[in-house]
Amino acid sequence: MAKSKYEYVKEFETDDKLLRNVFILVRVDGKGFHKFSAAHQFNKPNDVRALNLMNHAARSVMHELDDIVLAFGESDEYSFLFRRSTDLYQRRESKIVSTVVSLFTSAYVYYWNDYFTDSRRPLYPPVFDGRAVLYPSEVEVKDYFAWRQADTHINNLFNTSFWALVEKGGMTPKAAEVKLSGTDSKDKNEMLFTEFNTNYSKLPAIFRKGSVLLREHILKSLDKDHIIPTLPETLPGSTSADASVAESTMDTEEDTATPSISETPSIDNKRPLESDGATDEGDPTSEGAGESSGEFQAPPGFKRMKKGVVIDHIDIIGPKFWSGRGAYILAPEKRKKTGP
Amino acid sequence: MAKSKYEYVKEFETDDKLLRNVFILVRVDGKGFHKFSAAHQFNKPNDVRALNLMNHAARSVMHELDDIVLAFGESDEYSFLFRRSTDLYQRRESKIVSTVVSLFTSAYVYYWNDYFTDSRRPLYPPVFDGRAVLYPSEVEVKDYFAWRQADTHINNLFNTSFWALVEKGGMTPKAAEVKLSGTDSKDKNEMLFTEFNTNYSKLPAIFRKGSVLLREHILKSLDKDHIIPTLPETLPGSTSADASVAESTMDTEEDTATPSISETPSIDNKRPLESDGATDEGDPTSEGAGESSGEFQAPPGFKRMKKGVVIDHIDIIGPKFWSGRGAYILAPEKRKKTGP
Amino acid sequence: MAKSKYEYVKEFETDDKLLRNVFILVRVDGKGFHKFSAAHQFNKPNDVRALNLMNHAARSVMHELDDIVLAFGESDEYSFLFRRSTDLYQRRESKIVSTVVSLFTSAYVYYWNDYFTDSRRPLYPPVFDGRAVLYPSEVEVKDYFAWRQADTHINNLFNTSFWALVEKGGMTPKAAEVKLSGTDSKDKNEMLFTEFNTNYSKLPAIFRKGSVLLREHILKSLDKDHIIPTLPETLPGSTSADASVAESTMDTEEDTATPSISETPSIDNKRPLESDGATDEGDPTSEGAGESSGEFQAPPGFKRMKKGVVIDHIDIIGPKFWSGRGAYILAPEKRKKTGP
Amino acid sequence: MAKSKYEYVKEFETDDKLLRNVFILVRVDGKGFHKFSAAHQFNKPNDVRALNLMNHAARSVMHELDDIVLAFGESDEYSFLFRRSTDLYQRRESKIVSTVVSLFTSAYVYYWNDYFTDSRRPLYPPVFDGRAVLYPSEVEVKDYFAWRQADTHINNLFNTSFWALVEKGGMTPKAAEVKLSGTDSKDKNEMLFTEFNTNYSKLPAIFRKGSVLLREHILKSLDKDHIIPTLPETLPGSTSADASVAESTMDTEEDTATPSISETPSIDNKRPLESDGATDEGDPTSEGAGESSGEFQAPPGFKRMKKGVVIDHIDIIGPKFWSGRGAYILAPEKRKKTGP
Repeated sequence: MAKSKYEYVKEFETDDKLLRNVFILVRVDGKGFHKFSAAHQFNKPNDVRALNLMNHAARSVMHELDDIVLAFGESDEYSFLFRRSTDLYQRRESKIVSTVVSLFTSAYVYYWNDYFTDSRRPLYPPVFDGRAVLYPSEVEVKDYFAWRQADTHINNLFNTSFWALVEKGGMTPKAAEVKLSGTDSKDKNEMLFTEFNTNYSKLPAIFRKGSVLLREHILKSLDKDHIIPTLPETLPGSTSADASVAESTMDTEEDTATPSISETPSIDNKRPLESDGATDEGDPTSEGAGESSGEFQAPPGFKRMKKGVVIDHIDIIGPKFWSGRGAYILAPEKRKKTGP
Repeated sequence: MAKSKYEYVKEFETDDKLLRNVFILVRVDGKGFHKFSAAHQFNKPNDVRALNLMNHAARSVMHELDDIVLAFGESDEYSFLFRRSTDLYQRRESKIVSTVVSLFTSAYVYYWNDYFTDSRRPLYPPVFDGRAVLYPSEVEVKDYFAWRQADTHINNLFNTSFWALVEKGGMTPKAAEVKLSGTDSKDKNEMLFTEFNTNYSKLPAIFRKGSVLLREHILKSLDKDHIIPTLPETLPGSTSADASVAESTMDTEEDTATPSISETPSIDNKRPLESDGATDEGDPTSEGAGESSGEFQAPPGFKRMKKGVVIDHIDIIGPKFWSGRGAYILAPEKRKKTGP
Repeated sequence: MAKSKYEYVKEFETDDKLLRNVFILVRVDGKGFHKFSAAHQFNKPNDVRALNLMNHAARSVMHELDDIVLAFGESDEYSFLFRRSTDLYQRRESKIVSTVVSLFTSAYVYYWNDYFTDSRRPLYPPVFDGRAVLYPSEVEVKDYFAWRQADTHINNLFNTSFWALVEKGGMTPKAAEVKLSGTDSKDKNEMLFTEFNTNYSKLPAIFRKGSVLLREHILKSLDKDHIIPTLPETLPGSTSADASVAESTMDTEEDTATPSISETPSIDNKRPLESDGATDEGDPTSEGAGESSGEFQAPPGFKRMKKGVVIDHIDIIGPKFWSGRGAYILAPEKRKKTGP
Repeated sequence: MAKSKYEYVKEFETDDKLLRNVFILVRVDGKGFHKFSAAHQFNKPNDVRALNLMNHAARSVMHELDDIVLAFGESDEYSFLFRRSTDLYQRRESKIVSTVVSLFTSAYVYYWNDYFTDSRRPLYPPVFDGRAVLYPSEVEVKDYFAWRQADTHINNLFNTSFWALVEKGGMTPKAAEVKLSGTDSKDKNEMLFTEFNTNYSKLPAIFRKGSVLLREHILKSLDKDHIIPTLPETLPGSTSADASVAESTMDTEEDTATPSISETPSIDNKRPLESDGATDEGDPTSEGAGESSGEFQAPPGFKRMKKGVVIDHIDIIGPKFWSGRGAYILAPEKRKKTGP
């Protein structure tokens, strides 16, 4: 048959298996999101709808790929950490990277209207790219996430200061940039406080610290697909008004005793946990939709996980996280239950 | 600053530049599309809506990435050929593969409702993966596409026979499989003709030959973003009824004188060429819509190309294509105008 | 100048830097050594001259490349472990592999006549190939060397039995192979003892356990270029009685100021420095403590290294080695003095 | 058995197969040859013994590896071109590179004494490294060799001028360098001629053009392992007058039945086989036709595998070589007889 005559071209495919027993980190980045955010009039310096949509897309990735143990997002990028021993797709690089990027992109477009409720779809299809990086040891993994979260902090402090000067201070972008050049964090904090009456440390943690997706035990009374809501309507820059209670409990500047989700069930149960899924339209992978009560309905397309994915906006710089809630991440094979 | 302390982790990123001066082929495959097509009740053996959506997504990729000179699609896969000398993203493999896959996925979800008009979005986000393969010479490039098109033929002939036996012949899937095992092409053709009064060679070329996306000069009277319509309503398995005229001119079994798009302007202008783009909803990248005459309207989100992308369903096995319309593909640097 | 016109070809070179912070293991293998050993009438089952020449070549490699912390040799292969953090040649794979293989080959030919004293050079130039393997963690490094030493044990026990049957038992090779097939270690040990009066565990450790090259502190009274002699005259299959003299010609180039081993022959001849061979039980996994007892003295060493290179024939399977003399290997950055 | 328990470490080995159907070029470079040539008092600016030894080592590589179709050497480097379709070692990069480097190194040490007749072996083992580069098309292959030969020309003209100034002109190295800086080829040629009575174009071609190793039919009266002698006695810098005798000891291993070159010295001495050196004008791009005079005949049809390796010092820049003697190189599979 003709097939066999041509099939030799398959032999040009190369083996791209990633080294075993090292952490695989896949970072997804928005392409041309400066333009994309302008075209869609994202709020400045942060658009909580856009961040929540990013988080939702990232959760979709974690729902599909069990071997992702941690994800961190900021702005238009998201980082996914696979457990060290994953054998997903026999560790083939292209397969892993392309699947993560495709999943992320697909969910971003799919759930767009759940966050940008006034438009059925974006003005044009958004695009992300991705790459894999290998980290042999725990030290590098911790430092990778510290690197991204430090970046979040630096960028957000700058952007917050910049847009305060421009939008509230009436400066030109040029003048604002000049004024900020050479200043350090302390200078910017002080300027925000004295000139704009803004206590930077009281701004929402999602802006200051980015978003962390973890796998944790979920109370039986809660959905396994639970995601701690970030309730867009409560945040500055939101287009709607109502405030979030849960949000306020998720983060303090000190994080001394971050209440775990299991410790705040009453809060969680008070109100719709998930605002993004208006209808579960016959998703063949959703196994029983009983848990979506009241207004809340689970978004379609998520399958059941051994551990639920939760979101938080906490410090992942420093040992506290890694010895606490993040302890299972670096040695998931030996992990013990971290929940109650 | 903390940044510098952690930034060393960036040095773990590896250089994945692909060898220069060889053809880069990126193949995108649907993941779990057996399940996806069942969940969405795709028509068997072919769902023209799904194929047209694939084609639309592929065209979106070619619109964004000028260095793609040819694409071929069948079933849930699409292959994209970059010109030999492309320096896109400095030929970084992850960047190229992830961008193509993300673009494709994004467009697939984005345009879903244009083809599956009775549902706003799929039941859950679809996923594709992708990989790059390098081909050093023209021979392998031709044989690659011959391989894929031979695959299309073999699979479609089998599937057409199988579903005829099952749906028209009342056989069980098991029995149909048994009956077909060991048969060759001639046997299947004969069976279709004698038992089901079906002349296989008269079935729509999109099913038998897959879809070829090319760059060609477009008549001034036509949109540069023109895509030769495949008019879902005309094809077997379509949910609507009306027949396609353009389709019938696009392909003959012999392809002796494939009428180029410029030769059939009257047909093209008779009716809406593009059914998916009812409105251009403020796409910031569309640069003037003047060229869309008559009822035709450009789909949103496409930017202007030097050459329009056209679709056809022709033989790309054998020298005819490569010395004719495909001549510019393998040596795009020296290409001459192929249109009038 | 013409140069610039052609220099673009350099851009086809690819970056082959190995992942950082993982152990690099380079294994060198003789090519066609079945033929080579037959052509040079190597003694069976072991030729101590050939083994000593291999060890000498390996030591030359370690002399040149300070970042090699451990080497293990058996038969016609040698494995070299680089410290985890090495930045040799910016970790470029081809550079590292080709340099190790070239060094090894060069020394093998160069020192040939020091071991095969009756021929100036081999009958034809011998060839080795090599490859790098990355190991992310200590566990794999330990298991790698355990794998090689277990291989040494298995092969040597088989070969010893085989050649006993053939040379002493008068069997044909075919018959010997048949007789040995299906036997386990215990069977072979017993057969050697009962039929050939050979206590396998008393055979020289260099045969049973291969050769280990380490970096250790050297006694001041000893030559820095010292290599613990393997005392060919004491070993079965040795053709000469005074191999330590040949040794005296080994180092000429860089070490003129250093007293060569030939200046301390009395020490070498006084006592068997390699005392472990006599006490071990022939089980490569046994952790006999014999090697640092009694007459054993901290191994002397050689050259202008931070640490001298010493040779031994000890168990590297099991924790004893890795927590003892090999402790510095896996974390050389924090290593402490291991000598007395 | 213990073996299986550890054998998993083998799975960390990666597949390093090189892309098919592209030319593989392996370049071998001397490591630390500045020091090595000083230690061994190589003649300046060229040491014909060292060059001949390099050529001999390169020939040994070509003798072992039939798929090498061309080699070019200058100074302490040698480039080896494999035919496009080679499947040597399944195109595994490490295997190919390490084998070439090991072969080259082994032969270099092995044949040392044949060229440096006053020392049995070098002062210390010399080392080479190597790397593979892939070239997809003929254009790059030609340009690669043009690049290296242009480099030979530039370096040799500079070195010849430099050492003339130092050794004959009595200048300090510093002063010589200053005087030469900013001069072009013409300036240097003129200076050599007027100040030192040296016609650069009359210097031996081996210095000006490097050495080219080809596979060609050998006259029946000649050995298949024949290497066209470079007649050291005629070259400046040679210390011996009878280098062709040393040559006689070169081949011992594989060719016992074949008459070695030493058996046909009369032929070698009858006429200069290397005739192009005398007639060329010292421009590396000149296409002198001198080389096929006398008994020498343009290469007849090239049989795959067993072909004699010949050496020459001719222009490989420009089309003459590639359409003439080098014609079979780029498409050995389709080769036709190029000779009369």
